[in-house]
Amino acid sequence: MSTIGIFGLGLIGGCLGLDLRSRGYQVLGVSRRQDTCDRAVSLGAVDRASVDPSLLAPAEMIFLCTPIEAIAPAVKQLLPFLDPKTILTDVGSVKQAVVDAVVPLWSNFVPAHPMAGKAENGLQASQKDLFVDRPYVITPVASTPAASIAKVEAIARSLRSWVYQCSPANHDRAVAWISHLPVMVSASLLAACSSESDSQVLDLAYKLASSGFYDTSRVGGGYPELGVMMAKYNQHQVLQALYAYRDRLNNCIESIEQANWSGLEATFEETRQIRDRFFPPENRY
Amino acid sequence: MSTIGIFGLGLIGGCLGLDLRSRGYQVLGVSRRQDTCDRAVSLGAVDRASVDPSLLAPAEMIFLCTPIEAIAPAVKQLLPFLDPKTILTDVGSVKQAVVDAVVPLWSNFVPAHPMAGKAENGLQASQKDLFVDRPYVITPVASTPAASIAKVEAIARSLRSWVYQCSPANHDRAVAWISHLPVMVSASLLAACSSESDSQVLDLAYKLASSGFYDTSRVGGGYPELGVMMAKYNQHQVLQALYAYRDRLNNCIESIEQANWSGLEATFEETRQIRDRFFPPENRY
Repeated sequence: MSTIGIFGLGLIGGCLGLDLRSRGYQVLGVSRRQDTCDRAVSLGAVDRASVDPSLLAPAEMIFLCTPIEAIAPAVKQLLPFLDPKTILTDVGSVKQAVVDAVVPLWSNFVPAHPMAGKAENGLQASQKDLFVDRPYVITPVASTPAASIAKVEAIARSLRSWVYQCSPANHDRAVAWISHLPVMVSASLLAACSSESDSQVLDLAYKLASSGFYDTSRVGGGYPELGVMMAKYNQHQVLQALYAYRDRLNNCIESIEQANWSGLEATFEETRQIRDRFFPPENRY
Repeated sequence: MSTIGIFGLGLIGGCLGLDLRSRGYQVLGVSRRQDTCDRAVSLGAVDRASVDPSLLAPAEMIFLCTPIEAIAPAVKQLLPFLDPKTILTDVGSVKQAVVDAVVPLWSNFVPAHPMAGKAENGLQASQKDLFVDRPYVITPVASTPAASIAKVEAIARSLRSWVYQCSPANHDRAVAWISHLPVMVSASLLAACSSESDSQVLDLAYKLASSGFYDTSRVGGGYPELGVMMAKYNQHQVLQALYAYRDRLNNCIESIEQANWSGLEATFEETRQIRDRFFPPENRY
């Protein structure tokens, strides 16, 4: 394989391009906007770029790096130029919705999710080695060609990512817990604080807030489109996670209402142990 | 003023001792345990230490650095040895409950909360300069002598803390939002994740969890006693904050149930702005 296409030149597309070019591939890019194409070339993220999807015709593998809702339309735009051997793969952060939309259009499709990002978005934030030591989750379905999975996996390993394989549904359920639920939980914390009606108390809260509040509120203060995307395309799993969360929150409220301090302490003892399972103390960064 | 007492030689007592000795005060310490007294002397946190509270008789100001529930008992132990001019001040992280318990015992009491801490607890984690650039909140009541407030404030400034003054109730309400609510919110997130019944999904969640989950779950995985202390001694304000939080969480759930994506986006747009008020982008650490 020598030529790789990237459809969508944002942060992830740009980072993939930089890494793949540095590994000797010819990288071709497509964006909706000519100025993005020009910047991608001048940043060295792609060898050539165009607003015309036919540019990707020679690519043996094409990374779909658009927002979730634009992935299936991108595939439709590409269909006239694809060879049956062309492998399509995506980088979307939910998988079942993408699989449902894309597999009927192109069976040689390897759904995947490289789990890397930055606080800043967009092509201009691109950098090399974004995927190093990050999970790269491949979520094939029964009809996904094994040889194509192997090729995407080889690329992911060349980026020095940790490759995992699971079903689209299991991916979506796992990320609902560890990525999507925290956004809803954290955003609700910020929204709750702003309900404080005493401006003196609110001003004091602004002054006293420090690392604990900073960390707990971080993902709830991010890009609004990102939170909506999670809820919209992973609606069922996010709701299941939120219902479980609400139950646990109500347990906590009940313990405090009833002054059940031993029960509350047992809960905190449990949550400390759960966090140790997520982040073993010796590995904490 | 030349002699300062510290009752309770844990992390905060130890840090205060190190800083105050370096500023030329003679520092006397009291702990329940002789071996803690010995370690405090050898660490240089105090000049002399004893399990006998009469050691603090010569101190012009005494810092009460025990856990919340032990503050009033400490004052009772000290009463036989106090001169009416002796200033008592505390470092408790809730204020109304402390004020209610201590003011009737000793009117020359300056309730305060230096807002500093570390991941590790205990005397052995003591260090210099823990209070530099941290808030030091003084919460006097009408009967608190102005001259005593001024002396505690001068000490706090000498530690290079940011000094704030407010009522005990306003302190407790502000910290409910920015310190206590985040612990309950974050612990409930950990508890919710552990309710996942599919062990494959849970294993995947462990592997995929990264900075977003790390940050949002951090304060919920801390010392169980700390979370219980917040809920127990700030019960009313913590419950008010939790009720407001539950309302906002339910709004979020409702938007997702109803696929009201524009409403959800408006919420996230609001929470992004709220976070910018807490942590202006140019100041973020």
